[in-house]
Order: sequence, then structure tokens, then C-alpha cells
Amino acid sequence: MKSLRERVLSDGKVLNDNVLQVGSFLNHMVDINLLHEIGKEFAKVFKDLKPTKIITIEASGIPMAALCALELGIPFIVAKKQSSSILKENIFKAEVFSYTKQKAFSIYVSRDVIKGDDRLLIIDDFLASGEAVSGLIKIINEANATLAGVGICIEKTYQNGAKDLYSKNINLHSLVRIKSLAGGVISLYDDESKKY
Amino acid sequence: MKSLRERVLSDGKVLNDNVLQVGSFLNHMVDINLLHEIGKEFAKVFKDLKPTKIITIEASGIPMAALCALELGIPFIVAKKQSSSILKENIFKAEVFSYTKQKAFSIYVSRDVIKGDDRLLIIDDFLASGEAVSGLIKIINEANATLAGVGICIEKTYQNGAKDLYSKNINLHSLVRIKSLAGGVISLYDDESKKY
Repeated sequence: MKSLRERVLSDGKVLNDNVLQVGSFLNHMVDINLLHEIGKEFAKVFKDLKPTKIITIEASGIPMAALCALELGIPFIVAKKQSSSILKENIFKAEVFSYTKQKAFSIYVSRDVIKGDDRLLIIDDFLASGEAVSGLIKIINEANATLAGVGICIEKTYQNGAKDLYSKNINLHSLVRIKSLAGGVISLYDDESKKY
Repeated sequence: MKSLRERVLSDGKVLNDNVLQVGSFLNHMVDINLLHEIGKEFAKVFKDLKPTKIITIEASGIPMAALCALELGIPFIVAKKQSSSILKENIFKAEVFSYTKQKAFSIYVSRDVIKGDDRLLIIDDFLASGEAVSGLIKIINEANATLAGVGICIEKTYQNGAKDLYSKNINLHSLVRIKSLAGGVISLYDDESKKY
């Protein structure tokens, strides 16, 4: 997606070889016009796969899940990172290891919100090692629902997440694909439709 | 807001005298049509106050902040509950006490995203004791920015948050106002424009 690629190049900040900061437009302060475009782009890419619901993990995937849901006219589910008095029984649960934070956490989804005939579209801001997406896929499988596809704003193609999903024939579409952040330089693939 | 009031009455679940569960349509699985209406309603109520940015706290305020931002055509800021390698310097920070969880947490906003000439609109899903809103107001004050107003989906009018905001002459608008959850019965005020 050309406008997101250009924005990453102009306003993204490389903190180190693995961390790209996009807080000025995507996940701390959100440029609503860009987000609207992202929602429309995901809807265009995935509408023929007929998803019935979108699912993401709190918190930074929520904005793009919401705008994609708006375009497709379907509900979206926010997997929670904490159990609570509201979400402690009748739940699907999966473990997710965060390489950024170097610790595992659990995600929780009520059994009331995913049914066996649902076709789930996973939406998130970043894909790196793919742990978060794997956790959501485990929950979708446990619910006997179908994974329609995975839509990612920014894929770190040099890590293993995308490769793993492609090897399982999952419909992954990433709007921007990072080749490298080495030396503080953002190097992107020009075309998000190409695989590596 | 009639449609949200009706939805709270039909699908809200009272867990105890203080906790209303709205996960089936507002903060776990989100009904996108209802959310779109909420965004339009907030935009209609607050547009004359000319907000330049919306601010909310992760995670459950993000959907309504995003849809209101879309209608107003302004960016939205998500205050983070955790510091990180990305958000550790050059920040505004405030303490928030959560009565639900009975513990304090900090919220973080980059100094790069709020300027002195900004007019901030706070949007959130619930207002109870008002601690989260107070934390955001502290940050807005520290940035020497202006608070344009506070938009809340569901106000627990029997707690102190709304009263405190009105006493400070803050432009608070809540779409649904709960009179009581006593005995497992949801009792609402009929008209959100009335004060208590």
C-alpha cells in the first residue's frame, strides 16, 4: 500500500535493528485518514474470502480492526490480555510469547463470540515472529471456526512469522513489508503482493 | 442515545451492583453498526467545540475514539498503560487508580503528540469514579493544552465521576446514564441531556 509505505519511510523511526517506531501516525497517535485507507485496503483484499468477523489482540491492532470492520460491515472481536471478573469462565485461552518483552502472556476470548460457522479475519498492526497470530489461530481452531485470512499493516519479512504462515498456506496480506532495519535504515520491499 | 440505551437494556448483563458486562456488543465483540452510530453521535455533540485531537486510554476506549475521529476528521491519541523501549523518554505521565482492579497504574503519552494549541476531546467507554479521565486531564494540563470535552458511552451516574466533572464545568456528555444496577436490574435515566 503505497501511502503507508511512504509514511513509514518519512515518519518511521528505527530504534534498533528490530524496532521500528510508528507512534506518530499508526499506534500512539493515529492519522485517521491513513487508518481509513488501511481499513478500505484490507476490506478490498479480503472481502471475497467472506469473513464473518474480525479478530485482533488488544491494544494496537484495534484501530485497523475497527476501520476494516466498518468497511466490511461485520463485527470485530478484541482478544483480551488479562482475565477479569467479566472474562474468567466459558473462555478460549492461548499462550503468546512476546519476543519484544521476553515474556509469555495469555489471551482470552469468550466462547460466546466465536461460533463453528464463523470465518475469522485476523487483523494486526505488526507481524514479526508471528506469536500473536499463532495464539489467535489456536483459539479459532479450538472454536472449530475457519481462518479466512490474516491482514497485517507492517510485516518484518526478515523474521519468521510471514514465512511460517505462507508455509501453512494461510492467506496473509501485509500492506508494508520490511526487508531490513539494519544500520538505522528502513529498507522496504516495493510490492506487497510479492513473496520472498 | 436511544439505540445504545436499548442495547444496554437488552444485551447488558449485571454481574454485581457495580459491574455491567457489555462484552457482547461494545468492548469485547464490537457491533460495528452501533459503534458507527456512537462515533457520529459524539461528533455531532462535540464538533462545535472544535477539538483538534481525540485522546483515550488503551484498550476499550479505542473503538469509539477511532470512529469519532473518523467523523470529525481529526487524529486520535491512545495513552499507553505501559512504558516501553519506544515510550520511555520525553513523555507525559499520570497515575490512575483503578477501583475495579484495586490498584494504581500509570499512563504515558509522548510529548510529541500534544501541543499547547491543541483542543483535546476525551472519549471512553465507561465513566465511574472518573480516575481515568482525571489522569488524562492532568496530562492535558501539563501539556498546556485545552480540554474541549469528555464523551462517554456509559456513565455510572450513581458514582462520583460525572458529578466531579460537572462541578468543574467540564463539557461532559454521556450517551447512556445508569441510575442503578441494584438487585441485578439495569435502571437507566431516560434522557442523557439531563443532569442529576
